[in-house]
Amino acid sequence: MTSREEKASRMFGCSERERALFEAGVKMGAVYHQFVGTPVSPYNVAELEKTIEHSVMVQPFVESASVNIKINMNDEKKDVYDYVSLKGEMIDAVIRIKVNGVSVTAEMRYLEELEYPLMYVSDVSQ
Amino acid sequence: MTSREEKASRMFGCSERERALFEAGVKMGAVYHQFVGTPVSPYNVAELEKTIEHSVMVQPFVESASVNIKINMNDEKKDVYDYVSLKGEMIDAVIRIKVNGVSVTAEMRYLEELEYPLMYVSDVSQ
Amino acid sequence: MTSREEKASRMFGCSERERALFEAGVKMGAVYHQFVGTPVSPYNVAELEKTIEHSVMVQPFVESASVNIKINMNDEKKDVYDYVSLKGEMIDAVIRIKVNGVSVTAEMRYLEELEYPLMYVSDVSQ
Amino acid sequence: MTSREEKASRMFGCSERERALFEAGVKMGAVYHQFVGTPVSPYNVAELEKTIEHSVMVQPFVESASVNIKINMNDEKKDVYDYVSLKGEMIDAVIRIKVNGVSVTAEMRYLEELEYPLMYVSDVSQ
Repeated sequence: MTSREEKASRMFGCSERERALFEAGVKMGAVYHQFVGTPVSPYNVAELEKTIEHSVMVQPFVESASVNIKINMNDEKKDVYDYVSLKGEMIDAVIRIKVNGVSVTAEMRYLEELEYPLMYVSDVSQ
Repeated sequence: MTSREEKASRMFGCSERERALFEAGVKMGAVYHQFVGTPVSPYNVAELEKTIEHSVMVQPFVESASVNIKINMNDEKKDVYDYVSLKGEMIDAVIRIKVNGVSVTAEMRYLEELEYPLMYVSDVSQ
Repeated sequence: MTSREEKASRMFGCSERERALFEAGVKMGAVYHQFVGTPVSPYNVAELEKTIEHSVMVQPFVESASVNIKINMNDEKKDVYDYVSLKGEMIDAVIRIKVNGVSVTAEMRYLEELEYPLMYVSDVSQ
Repeated sequence: MTSREEKASRMFGCSERERALFEAGVKMGAVYHQFVGTPVSPYNVAELEKTIEHSVMVQPFVESASVNIKINMNDEKKDVYDYVSLKGEMIDAVIRIKVNGVSVTAEMRYLEELEYPLMYVSDVSQ
């Protein structure tokens, strides 16, 4: 029987190495657009980081995912409005993808000099 | 000094009881539209439930939140595609709101006879 | 035959008036958590406003929806990074709900003095 | 003055061709995770398709975007519950990315034989 991965693989008109880069991009887009907007405070930030990491890990070809959210808030809650919505600018992420021996490391980081939360490929190795 | 809650409260053209119902609705809409689409499998489902609950808890006037996700999957992962995207139909939620002595219990549940994930108010008490 | 609305209605443990307030909250939570994060620039902002309005209009009991997004950007695109992700702070929304003769007007607006995008009920009438 | 694109470009530890593949993936992940969950019916489906396309177009390096949503509903609305939440399975998308002369075509399509909404690269050319 043909496995799902064999069927999926046939759809790709590019090399395995190129596919690994594409898969890395998909995961980065998912992190940003799934979770931006989530209510977050010191109370739930560590748990949210883990949840984002693990929601990446269940997707295909992910070796590891590390997410760090910078919310710059005091631990003591001032009032009921003292929380924020997750913004892309708060997210630092590193995701490692492996497709048939090709490893890609992708990162998301807010770059002050760009005023932009850049997603980029920091390493590809085979 | 006027607190943020006093300022917010003045914006409402309705009773405290009515506000409690509105707040309950806001939280239900947030659960659905923030998290539907999240990749989930037996590996991360329990953590995702907790994360949704706690993202509700950080919002104003929430007393408690309980989320149950039904994914109907085997624990053993068949292949890399063996996970799902969270759908509204999979979510059971119960959220309790309290605004100035008024308690509202709201629920979300997929109702087979409606073929619809209904959000409703199961109780209001004062 | 019992209509879906009759079946849904039976699930509610509150008055029609209270249900109208709950429904208003649901729609507000949906606007925020569905669309925050969407890439937006002067090129697509007017269309996005309409799309958010109409995604509210397809939901139950909505009479009207008006959305205004303030992005504070120049029409001329400086470079490929010259766009933003929709944030709650940018959204002004007015939604009118009607359930069995009860009309509720709910609004979302970023309030500088709260430093918070408040969702509130501005009017209830019967 | 160094442009934002020059600064961004320096962050990448891969070829331009590989970057184009990564960028294609990012856009696909964004389409899925931003818009899944949106309320949709025959009333707003054509507009939502355009809005998704244009939200892709405002992002960097996108040449074109084409989105088709299959909702399988009758034009006539039966009752207030007669709409759906956008699911990944309903989305057909084709996105064309161009980075420094490299063109990538990526597609998203629900494949019955995979029971999975696959995102894949259908073409890379230089």
